[in-house]
Amino acid sequence: MQKKVETYRLLGIDPGTNQLGYAVIEVTGKKLRPLDIGIVSMTHLVEQQFKLKKIFERITTIIEIYQPKEMAIEAVFYGKNVQSMLKLGRAQGVAMAAAIISGVEITEYSPKEIKKSITGNGNASKEQVAAMLKNTLKVNLDGHYLDATDALGVAVCHFYKSNSALGGGKRYSDWGAFLKENPKRVGK
Amino acid sequence: MQKKVETYRLLGIDPGTNQLGYAVIEVTGKKLRPLDIGIVSMTHLVEQQFKLKKIFERITTIIEIYQPKEMAIEAVFYGKNVQSMLKLGRAQGVAMAAAIISGVEITEYSPKEIKKSITGNGNASKEQVAAMLKNTLKVNLDGHYLDATDALGVAVCHFYKSNSALGGGKRYSDWGAFLKENPKRVGK
Repeated sequence: MQKKVETYRLLGIDPGTNQLGYAVIEVTGKKLRPLDIGIVSMTHLVEQQFKLKKIFERITTIIEIYQPKEMAIEAVFYGKNVQSMLKLGRAQGVAMAAAIISGVEITEYSPKEIKKSITGNGNASKEQVAAMLKNTLKVNLDGHYLDATDALGVAVCHFYKSNSALGGGKRYSDWGAFLKENPKRVGK
Repeated sequence: MQKKVETYRLLGIDPGTNQLGYAVIEVTGKKLRPLDIGIVSMTHLVEQQFKLKKIFERITTIIEIYQPKEMAIEAVFYGKNVQSMLKLGRAQGVAMAAAIISGVEITEYSPKEIKKSITGNGNASKEQVAAMLKNTLKVNLDGHYLDATDALGVAVCHFYKSNSALGGGKRYSDWGAFLKENPKRVGK
């Protein structure tokens, strides 16, 4: 008896305050096919409220169109200053809210984890990650911004992690693990 | 001819990752009446995703029930470390997304601005703010958490600012003003 091969879609997000990368991949068994790779630009919007609104609306639309099974997000856990982290947190928050209302499960991955999953090296450059994705997926990424290929990277990383023999990926647990290792955190 | 007195509602939010304070006030002319003051507790939830989900769902429900005209949010612009700011940013982001999808305009106020607006002193203690609100609104706040009275504070502050001779409050402009004064910020 032949095993039925499931087809589903994964959404990868690399959220930033001025530019957000996204990528939708279709998974059929072990085959990956990129359906949509792009960026949402907020550089022309001055008010942060409008930037957040745009992120929320675009992610909601992408979810409506492609109906992804799961969403993976590139989550930076550190930054140069608290103000930029608050801004980034807000951008992540609205992107996550869009997934939450659609019932799409979210998994976070650190940049290092994504790089390691795709290239085998946690310290690989963005260009190396892009080259590996291009090779693996047989897709031309030349015209795309690096934020968009980063989003593709997190989606592919999620596929690898979910299908590895080690289990179904660390769903939202990086955050907890990170905080456990950083007991000096100050919660509000 | 008698001028028609408009009645509308304002929602105040003091967002945190473990506890979020909210307050709904009804405004009729210059009269303020608290309709609902409370907290949303996330302390029992371990996974951050569930905390964010709870914030989003509760704010959405509060907006559905009370149909506030506007939302005011207490926004802390600084913190002890970048991790706590990212967490706080996410909590703020999902609360803001709930307002954005309902078309409710958001205005931010810094803690100092709220304290000054209510007590006349930007360095007033939380207890002093609570005492002044209790006196002004003739409401018993003894049973409430300070996060809830903070939320009441931001709602009342928004009312004062919107109705002051100086204009309709600084709608979302504190962020920009803050950043202008902090040119060292690093955007993503």
